[in-house]
Amino acid sequence: MTGRDGGADIGPIGAFSPVVILVRPQLAENIGTTARAMANGGLFHLRLVAPRDGWPQERAWYASSGADRILDAAQVFDSVDEAVADLHHVMATCPRPRHIVKTVMTARGAAAELRAISSRGLRAGLLFGPERAGLDNEDMARADILIRYPLNPNFMSLNLAQAVLIMAYEWWMACETTPPRTLMTNETHVATKGELENFLDHLTRDLDACGFLRNTQKRPGMVRNLRHLFQRGEVTEQELRTLHGVVTELSNGRKARQKQD
Amino acid sequence: MTGRDGGADIGPIGAFSPVVILVRPQLAENIGTTARAMANGGLFHLRLVAPRDGWPQERAWYASSGADRILDAAQVFDSVDEAVADLHHVMATCPRPRHIVKTVMTARGAAAELRAISSRGLRAGLLFGPERAGLDNEDMARADILIRYPLNPNFMSLNLAQAVLIMAYEWWMACETTPPRTLMTNETHVATKGELENFLDHLTRDLDACGFLRNTQKRPGMVRNLRHLFQRGEVTEQELRTLHGVVTELSNGRKARQKQD
Repeated sequence: MTGRDGGADIGPIGAFSPVVILVRPQLAENIGTTARAMANGGLFHLRLVAPRDGWPQERAWYASSGADRILDAAQVFDSVDEAVADLHHVMATCPRPRHIVKTVMTARGAAAELRAISSRGLRAGLLFGPERAGLDNEDMARADILIRYPLNPNFMSLNLAQAVLIMAYEWWMACETTPPRTLMTNETHVATKGELENFLDHLTRDLDACGFLRNTQKRPGMVRNLRHLFQRGEVTEQELRTLHGVVTELSNGRKARQKQD
Repeated sequence: MTGRDGGADIGPIGAFSPVVILVRPQLAENIGTTARAMANGGLFHLRLVAPRDGWPQERAWYASSGADRILDAAQVFDSVDEAVADLHHVMATCPRPRHIVKTVMTARGAAAELRAISSRGLRAGLLFGPERAGLDNEDMARADILIRYPLNPNFMSLNLAQAVLIMAYEWWMACETTPPRTLMTNETHVATKGELENFLDHLTRDLDACGFLRNTQKRPGMVRNLRHLFQRGEVTEQELRTLHGVVTELSNGRKARQKQD
């Protein structure tokens, strides 16, 4: 059952990655966009509890942007109890839980917990309620933990796929090792202090030659300020070569003009 | 210009929260769902660079789920240069940057940086490219920093509003203090060790009375195992009162049966 003939290669499927369980979902489009959001964050196991319009629904495949494999393998159950029977942990997303004694975690906290559960070889499920109504009290009583996203309390409205996306994103981030900041250097490298010094020597020499640094009292401070500027961020070796060229050409232009005068 | 007569009260608008800049957006619906995603994460300033179908577009308001105030205040510019002219920092989201020397940050790293910029009283902008094509090389050259989301590299496809949602969510999370895990106790409180001990005494007494602990060699271990079970998670004072009742009633039932025999 594929609406787009196979879909994308969405990468390796973790046997113990959490199962996303949509409880009584109403719109097939939302099941499709949920699959897309799952693929974004590396979640691959989808279960549907009593989907309103039955299953399969062609429209889900069209809405999934190629996450066909997730929809192809989706399992359908009549009740939450049946859908969670083989799982060891169940978490339920719930924007506004009330009158209930239950552990509540942020999406980020839950993602770390899910990684820990998965690395123990245990299976976890994530319950998402139907559009509008959300999970009912009986559904929530079947969860070990409730997940509440920290979001603008004046505007919590998320559609189903967006709710799944935030959880899938946090699941992915919980094992992500990309440094928060890096300089993408393409085919060059971050300049060493020696390479920077070499350029600053060149610049200072040419600025001496043109007279820009003729005030001997102010000269050390001026040179230091230029150094501060060029030290503020990482510079690449290639950029220093460009700067060498800039200084040389500006100097040559000045010398040429001086000759003309 | 409102399609839904006013929209939701989306909360206080931070003067120095980052500006979301949609560059050459194509579909009005995506501008509306972008506004919704912004409101979720507490971003309120929207700018549009050369929206394909002009502005305003009624359909944006219908897609925004009540984030009207953001759309009402959206500003339109002809070029990226004009849209960023009054900003101090510009970051650009870019899923697959190539052949370019630029600082790249994760969404989380960028959010922390944006909070730091904001707390210095400086204004930052976030560039999001048009659907499909994304930002072009000239757009990216106008950014100080590129933001690349860590996501499943085999399935990076995000729609515009989802890309905005992840950034808005990280902006919100960068100042969020909700503990990752908490027990929601409603109108009771987490039981003290004394309250737990009191219940375990009651249970042990009744288990002694019914003969369950008659094996004196095994008795200490059995009591300890029960203690381990009840100590595994937090228990509330109200739940302990219920458990007291459960033990008492089970005991009374047994005594009543014994009388009948």
